[in-house]
Amino acid sequence: MSDSRVINFGAGPSALPDSVLDEAAKGLLNFKGTGIGIAEISHRSREFVEYLNELESLIRIQLDVPPTHKILFTQGGGTGQFSAVVLNLLARHRLLHPDLPNEGRTLDYVVTGSWSKKAVDEARRLGATVNIAADARKLSGSGKLFQEIPPHDAYTFSPDPVLIYYCENETVDGVQFSHKDSAPSSFPFHLLPKSTLLPLVADYSSSFMSRNIPRLADHAVIFAGAQKNIGPAGLTILIVRQDCIVDVDAAAKLGAIPVPITMSFKALADANSLYNTPSVLPIYIAGLVLQRSKELGGVQYYEELNRRKAQKLYDTLKEGEAKGVFRGKVKEGSGSWMNVVFDVLGEGAEARFLNGAEEQGLKGLKGHR
Amino acid sequence: MSDSRVINFGAGPSALPDSVLDEAAKGLLNFKGTGIGIAEISHRSREFVEYLNELESLIRIQLDVPPTHKILFTQGGGTGQFSAVVLNLLARHRLLHPDLPNEGRTLDYVVTGSWSKKAVDEARRLGATVNIAADARKLSGSGKLFQEIPPHDAYTFSPDPVLIYYCENETVDGVQFSHKDSAPSSFPFHLLPKSTLLPLVADYSSSFMSRNIPRLADHAVIFAGAQKNIGPAGLTILIVRQDCIVDVDAAAKLGAIPVPITMSFKALADANSLYNTPSVLPIYIAGLVLQRSKELGGVQYYEELNRRKAQKLYDTLKEGEAKGVFRGKVKEGSGSWMNVVFDVLGEGAEARFLNGAEEQGLKGLKGHR
Repeated sequence: MSDSRVINFGAGPSALPDSVLDEAAKGLLNFKGTGIGIAEISHRSREFVEYLNELESLIRIQLDVPPTHKILFTQGGGTGQFSAVVLNLLARHRLLHPDLPNEGRTLDYVVTGSWSKKAVDEARRLGATVNIAADARKLSGSGKLFQEIPPHDAYTFSPDPVLIYYCENETVDGVQFSHKDSAPSSFPFHLLPKSTLLPLVADYSSSFMSRNIPRLADHAVIFAGAQKNIGPAGLTILIVRQDCIVDVDAAAKLGAIPVPITMSFKALADANSLYNTPSVLPIYIAGLVLQRSKELGGVQYYEELNRRKAQKLYDTLKEGEAKGVFRGKVKEGSGSWMNVVFDVLGEGAEARFLNGAEEQGLKGLKGHR
Repeated sequence: MSDSRVINFGAGPSALPDSVLDEAAKGLLNFKGTGIGIAEISHRSREFVEYLNELESLIRIQLDVPPTHKILFTQGGGTGQFSAVVLNLLARHRLLHPDLPNEGRTLDYVVTGSWSKKAVDEARRLGATVNIAADARKLSGSGKLFQEIPPHDAYTFSPDPVLIYYCENETVDGVQFSHKDSAPSSFPFHLLPKSTLLPLVADYSSSFMSRNIPRLADHAVIFAGAQKNIGPAGLTILIVRQDCIVDVDAAAKLGAIPVPITMSFKALADANSLYNTPSVLPIYIAGLVLQRSKELGGVQYYEELNRRKAQKLYDTLKEGEAKGVFRGKVKEGSGSWMNVVFDVLGEGAEARFLNGAEEQGLKGLKGHR
């Protein structure tokens, strides 16, 4: 098997360990000795419910998720959550402030790349009033590109926003917040309005479980599609603080936008993520990946591993820059550990670079346009 | 392998052929000779896009879907579509009749079981005005149970409804429309308002690809979760007539409920079902199942097979009723070919029946409460 397998650098769906795929292949035929394959087993069966609970605890333990937060599983990817966080948190805001006019309900977005920009587009599509708390494109020298995490003095937050949104790692642009609170390119937690129940929302789709989540407990919602780091596409993971799991139907009666039932955090939470049939197969594979991750030493292990890998890659990039071979596209200190974005310089050089890589079995390096 | 596999009667996720599972297990490690597993491959890769197009054509050919209709793939199951059809067809109605007050926008629902009842609940949650075109519980002798398809004289449709909704096969209740147009328990197409562009919506989740779809071309939307007949959970298939793929954003500006982008038929159609990362693994397995189905003789083959199986089962049930062993729960002529619902009579008899079945490797017979 390993003979024919290539090394896949695709940004997502991304590579899975061979041992996990072997185990998954077995589970397709016989899940946990039930004689029924994982793709066929009832999601209400004892065996599956236990497995889902295990998956929940693998995440809770490795990320140190406090009991104030629920871990939920759903479908629709990060894009589904672009809408769901707006609708659920607008409902929450409506219940907190029933008499405020719609124009008074402001959603703060930090825009650091293509994905956070898409999230803004969706909030506007849904009719929300958006305040751009910071826009990386407006910084000196950036032009129209996202090349850095804004410095702390570039942020302006609203006093009582419906939500405060950021994307921790931008896949297309290769920009990531520093996970050191004190770093200039970290998220400016100290500038947020003072509240113990801040509506802070983070898209962790492309860095979930790759390292610790700074100030996890201060977040209202953290979401991630599984397909970047922990499994196949089709599974979305939510970490939601309990005060954000609100009665969306009561809010709709007060004038909030009605929330489709599959997007209601409350419907999901009340049914322990089994309101409707979940995507059992991605759940199964995510469980295998996170079990392996736990055995290897958990998120701490990956954090150290990823730090070393990123360091090596950025060092090589720097050398290449000095030689005029490469040009990094992201400002120092804002570069992603997950996806490193650079140009290969010279006429036809990029094609030669990609061909050479493919010949050595390294696929999916091209990335986005 | 087959030694340890049991016979799985679960209503869904339901059993998959061993040959498909073997093939799927191989694809997990190496999809179509790419050296990359199906769970890891980019959904933008040539190989995957070709596969998706093949899946589309496997459905189009076997069900004889006309070019007036698009076939789309999404996530979220039938429950997601309970909301999506309401939102997209409300948007369509708004664009057709911009000045009508909301109370004038009526949604017609035919209620024949638990799933169509859930669809009504969701329409009401979203604030829609519902007309129950027929309710099987109100028929003589039914009491609070769904035990039959209403006779044609029990329907009352609105003159210009936003949608006309029915569930072709009710899994919990074991009730299914006859697929013979002339049968008394067929869907009353001849009673519908006269229009070439009827907003007729059918939930085919539990009978999709098990037999032909009567009057398919007259439908506005047919939807189905894959997990009942053609693959694992996590894939939803839509057959949508082109006039129902509308500019939901323009409709929202006119006052329609905003539609989350992952639920917009237009966003899906414009991106050939690749607006966001699709659930590649269920798509892969559905392709294997439908390829096999085509080789066996297509939907016609299954229709004949299912007719014979159902006949045998209902005959046995009748014999058992005569002997006082069983009691069928559905009126003759309304019984489902997919899921046959009956009581086992006598103190402790049901438990003995289920135990006996399990001993012979027949699992999942218990069904819903």
